[in-house]
Amino acid sequence: MRYLDKDAIERIAIGAAFLGTGGGGDPYIGKMMALSAIEKNGPVRLYSVDEIEDEDFFIPAAMMGAPSVLVEKFPRGDEFVKVFQKLAKYIGKEKITGTYPMEAGGVNSMIPIVVAAQLDLPLIDCDGMGRAFPELQMVTFNLDGISATPMAITDEKGNIGIFETIDNKWTERLARTATVEMGASSLVSLYPTTGAQIKKSGVHHIITLSEKIGEIISSKEQNAKEKLQELLKLVSGYQLFQGKIVDVIRETKGGFNLGKMNLEGIEENKDENMKVHFQNENLIAEKDGQVVAMTPDLICLVDYETLLPVTTESLKYGKRVRVIGLPAHEKWRTDKGIETAGPNYFGYDYDYVPIEELVKKVVVKHV
Amino acid sequence: MRYLDKDAIERIAIGAAFLGTGGGGDPYIGKMMALSAIEKNGPVRLYSVDEIEDEDFFIPAAMMGAPSVLVEKFPRGDEFVKVFQKLAKYIGKEKITGTYPMEAGGVNSMIPIVVAAQLDLPLIDCDGMGRAFPELQMVTFNLDGISATPMAITDEKGNIGIFETIDNKWTERLARTATVEMGASSLVSLYPTTGAQIKKSGVHHIITLSEKIGEIISSKEQNAKEKLQELLKLVSGYQLFQGKIVDVIRETKGGFNLGKMNLEGIEENKDENMKVHFQNENLIAEKDGQVVAMTPDLICLVDYETLLPVTTESLKYGKRVRVIGLPAHEKWRTDKGIETAGPNYFGYDYDYVPIEELVKKVVVKHV
Repeated sequence: MRYLDKDAIERIAIGAAFLGTGGGGDPYIGKMMALSAIEKNGPVRLYSVDEIEDEDFFIPAAMMGAPSVLVEKFPRGDEFVKVFQKLAKYIGKEKITGTYPMEAGGVNSMIPIVVAAQLDLPLIDCDGMGRAFPELQMVTFNLDGISATPMAITDEKGNIGIFETIDNKWTERLARTATVEMGASSLVSLYPTTGAQIKKSGVHHIITLSEKIGEIISSKEQNAKEKLQELLKLVSGYQLFQGKIVDVIRETKGGFNLGKMNLEGIEENKDENMKVHFQNENLIAEKDGQVVAMTPDLICLVDYETLLPVTTESLKYGKRVRVIGLPAHEKWRTDKGIETAGPNYFGYDYDYVPIEELVKKVVVKHV
Repeated sequence: MRYLDKDAIERIAIGAAFLGTGGGGDPYIGKMMALSAIEKNGPVRLYSVDEIEDEDFFIPAAMMGAPSVLVEKFPRGDEFVKVFQKLAKYIGKEKITGTYPMEAGGVNSMIPIVVAAQLDLPLIDCDGMGRAFPELQMVTFNLDGISATPMAITDEKGNIGIFETIDNKWTERLARTATVEMGASSLVSLYPTTGAQIKKSGVHHIITLSEKIGEIISSKEQNAKEKLQELLKLVSGYQLFQGKIVDVIRETKGGFNLGKMNLEGIEENKDENMKVHFQNENLIAEKDGQVVAMTPDLICLVDYETLLPVTTESLKYGKRVRVIGLPAHEKWRTDKGIETAGPNYFGYDYDYVPIEELVKKVVVKHV
């Protein structure tokens, strides 16, 4: 067990936004929510997965829907606790041991910290994705057959829903329509899980990894190239491209931020181009028309100079970025993982090829 | 208290379908469900509103969505009990005293009979409309500020939702999107109510009225004209038109059966025409371009010969019908009632005029 203080939260917000691959919410908003909760309630206890008991019981809390909308309807901050407590009451367990994030992301890594601070509950160092994904069944617990429901959903107005569904795709369908009706963004608690389930099916150490990533990115002592090298080493990643955003096509549809962006290469990538497709999260990266990374592997955009993560809702014409690719957690590289969140599921007609293989086929410029 | 046997159910299904004004479901399907429940569990006890205590607690059960779809996905029959019990459990009351229909209608008057039979609960002689309406806030309880939630919703596949909303229009919005996602039709329990609330805000004696209407319509001893006269007297109604359906435009949209039909007059109405607009229920009747009846007053189509009610999903080219208009319950004729379910709410640019006034302006042919 260790305490998460303000500095830790700053780092985690940055690192989790990086792993959010464009989704999971804006790290500035997330950070502000968590800092304010800690200011009021004191630091949060972080437990590693080894420190929990099999029979302990945990409830995650997260934001659902289009991250761009969350920026406009900033939650009051008590909705996270409300949706968490609603689900806890519905389940009827005498004691909820703690909470943890559903996914990595600037906001979605911070919401459980707010809940943990406000309810004085432990936070567990794990999540259900090891990255961010747009749909509720894209969770490692789902790959192991764990039910997403009962789940609770709420909006900033105070409406509440509870769902119990026949499978996790139906959870996604019903929660998605409710989210759209609630104004394209909602707050949810789902995948209530035991300690044993977390040990078997969660992505472990993800908060600590986020913090390490955030520490590298926010270092004042290294220049961009040095930081990048350290970052790529830590996450076994590749710099796929460096360039300027020249075109962004996007729409908010069905409770998602959908779209694609075109990048024009700079420096080593001069005269080359890259196209990145996204649905909240970046899904496919093509360099000069050739796929160089595909979901479930991670495609992360960072600012060219600062290496700060760039989320899909903040894409802007002219912004210079680096595109970094890294391998997904091994649970996503199984048949079930690829079926659930691979390129075919999102409508792309590619067989999944791991990023390590893809980068061999195209010339990857090393820094 | 009296028992409802098979004959009573046959009559109630017919009479309730008449009061359903085109909506509320097909009486044949409704009847078959209720008869099968009674066959298995014995007759159902019907209590008048005078016989219940203020602190008694009741939960209605109903079908929501496009009635035409229900015909295709006939429920197994245990979903009504399931959704009722889900809400009962959620509310946490030790004892649910009984059940009652939300609205009059061929199916929606029968579903509470199925629940009452299967759970051996009393049925109360009241509903929340005195007719059928398409949306969840169009309930006399809502007019008196009673919350529609907590509500439970389920589908034939086994998915379950519970909603608690900030007002009853939000109940309609969230339950409607869930219903559409569930396949345009769902089963719901909502407006949990005390005996005192039913006494003050319910529409009383509606099941008994339905039964009387059904008795007249199914009489073998009278001809169509005699039956019609008796029926109009009982419900203070008017025959607005008799004619042949020559055109029906309809679509299933947003979980509703929407459309309009054109009728060509016969006999006394020869060379005249009528147009009826509907959204599950018949809303506006125009004779030769002049409005002769409008919501919340009732516009009921019956077969020309048998006087059996004609629901909107069974409208057919060439069918000969009588159009009967009758005054809505006084609760619907208040300012709040007209605001909630009057012509403006449905997008028609008419000020509400009671049918008794409207029929004075046009020549109403008497039988």
